Amino acid sequence: MKLAVIPGDGIGPEVVAEGLKVLTGVIPQVEISTYDLGASRWHRTGELLPDSVLRELRGHDAILLGAVGDPTVPAGILERGLLLRIRFELDHHVNLRPARLYPGVTGPLAGDQSIDLVVVREGTEGPYAGAGGLLRKDSPHEIATEVSVNTYFGVERVVRNAFERANRRARKHLTLVHKTNVLAYSGQLWSRVVEEVSMEYPDVAVAYCHIDAAMIYLVTDPGRFDVIVTDNLFGDIITDLAAAVSGGIGLAASGNLDVSRTNPSMFEPVHGSAPDIAGTGTADPTATVLSIALLLDHLGMPDSARRVEAAIAFDLATRQPGSVGRTQAVGDRLAALASS
Amino acid sequence: MKLAVIPGDGIGPEVVAEGLKVLTGVIPQVEISTYDLGASRWHRTGELLPDSVLRELRGHDAILLGAVGDPTVPAGILERGLLLRIRFELDHHVNLRPARLYPGVTGPLAGDQSIDLVVVREGTEGPYAGAGGLLRKDSPHEIATEVSVNTYFGVERVVRNAFERANRRARKHLTLVHKTNVLAYSGQLWSRVVEEVSMEYPDVAVAYCHIDAAMIYLVTDPGRFDVIVTDNLFGDIITDLAAAVSGGIGLAASGNLDVSRTNPSMFEPVHGSAPDIAGTGTADPTATVLSIALLLDHLGMPDSARRVEAAIAFDLATRQPGSVGRTQAVGDRLAALASS
Ligand SMILES: CC(C)[C@H](C(=O)O)[C@@H](O)C(=O)O
Ligand SMILES: CC(C)[C@H](C(=O)O)[C@@H](O)C(=O)O
Repeated sequence: MKLAVIPGDGIGPEVVAEGLKVLTGVIPQVEISTYDLGASRWHRTGELLPDSVLRELRGHDAILLGAVGDPTVPAGILERGLLLRIRFELDHHVNLRPARLYPGVTGPLAGDQSIDLVVVREGTEGPYAGAGGLLRKDSPHEIATEVSVNTYFGVERVVRNAFERANRRARKHLTLVHKTNVLAYSGQLWSRVVEEVSMEYPDVAVAYCHIDAAMIYLVTDPGRFDVIVTDNLFGDIITDLAAAVSGGIGLAASGNLDVSRTNPSMFEPVHGSAPDIAGTGTADPTATVLSIALLLDHLGMPDSARRVEAAIAFDLATRQPGSVGRTQAVGDRLAALASS
Repeated sequence: MKLAVIPGDGIGPEVVAEGLKVLTGVIPQVEISTYDLGASRWHRTGELLPDSVLRELRGHDAILLGAVGDPTVPAGILERGLLLRIRFELDHHVNLRPARLYPGVTGPLAGDQSIDLVVVREGTEGPYAGAGGLLRKDSPHEIATEVSVNTYFGVERVVRNAFERANRRARKHLTLVHKTNVLAYSGQLWSRVVEEVSMEYPDVAVAYCHIDAAMIYLVTDPGRFDVIVTDNLFGDIITDLAAAVSGGIGLAASGNLDVSRTNPSMFEPVHGSAPDIAGTGTADPTATVLSIALLLDHLGMPDSARRVEAAIAFDLATRQPGSVGRTQAVGDRLAALASS
């Protein structure tokens, strides 16, 4: 396996090191190339994602990203110039984000919750398309527009992938989250596609939920969700809430997938570079290791993926309550469990 | 006071009756005209909001709405033809939604939470403008666009109103919630306006939070928020979550305000028509009564507003845990407390 690694900034390199420890423990033949991208490179050279680097990335089977950013980089620079550019250039149309409340993990919700859902977020269009503009900028007559672009092509492939996943899961339940009562044009398209594709998956039960109602359900009854399919922006919002109710973004993994496998997919923890704790050795590498499980699944190694997940589940269930793991100690434990 | 009342469908008329009980208890001189609008009228006549009715509504000091809708009306019909049409025609640019965890109310979050925030949601533009369209509809080449329209004029008046409110509150703290790192055009406009207007309110501390991060904070540390200002769609999403963590939409009030007072403002509970419990006499009228407090505030009767709020606070603190109030009994109690 040829793996491109972008450790990034802050705690990125620290969690990536532990992720690689686990990966190389379960899959010995990994050929790693490391790419220096992120805030630090931008500060030094002004470069975000040189075309030559993008070309090299394409030559790999997958990409592992730690986290990029630091507070001195203006908002939007790294997002649009690096993270979103990779997602769009490599056609990462399925943004996969599971949320699961593992035994032993205390979430913020009172009472017993059972959360085991996966969000299939569209990754290459919608309000993220970058369309829009400013008229009469900086004047009292300024007008700013943002255009959400939704195509049948783009929606269909994501909805289909969500149905495939739902069909493979025990509960076989899929919820479309949107705001069809207000965003009527894109709502119509999403609804039609879900209806059409559902014909091919008669075993999957289909539900619909407005994005605002989904907020309420995620804190009062998150167990109702199995697979959620939604657009790029709603997916961004809902996955942070799903992560929060499942114990925090310290445990949230994500895969940016080109499910056609034309381009390498990219795996990353949902959390940021957390400059405040960088260098202290206290960052939790669990989300990165979970992202490794997604990577193994995507590359057709489900047995290894299950071993990594089982290691995480065991570790979380047996961690002393309140004990904060040291980054390396957690990585060592997970690597030992996964390769045992 | 000339009040237009739209009881609507389902539990709408039930909760509105209790709201009026409380209102007429504290303000004896209320002249009420009732308007039959909603799912039931649409089913009978096909009418949503006849121009003549809209003209009559304009002649009132305020509007009280219960809830509209039933499951047999296709999504979007009542929303766009009635609710949003009123908001847009009457220029309800400030959509005011307080969220407070009252003593005695058990929310879904574990641990002690102190929540007392108010969301100032823009109400007449953004992704709700209705701009966009479909190309190659119903074909495999369909493209659906939604255009978020944001104007300096529209953003400035809402941001200013939010600063005024923050300045009157004890904590004097305002958070802009947006997604400036992705929605760069509208993000730039909102950020600029907040920065400009903040100069006039030197006592108000200003923070910024991405919409996705706001999801996490609302379930892990909701006490950090005081006044939130945000766009129409983010406001829709955030206010349902804020309501959920403060004990549910059964307690969530809202005011659709034309703060210039050119047109009557409209007050409504955030919950829907709940056809499943309509007629059972179990709907909680508290959100409607809280909306009455917003109405009194808006019309310059803060003392009466505080009395209504105090009645609600007392009632919630003294309700037997687990006892579900009967609609009329709750209304009677609140009316007696508020007018005592
Ligand atoms: C950093 C940002 C561009 C990104 C997004 O909005 O998709 C992040 O929030 C995420 O969810 O991966
Ligand atoms: C019914 C719908 C149009 C409305 C909205 O999206 O604004 C509702 O969700 C609300 O928050 O008042």
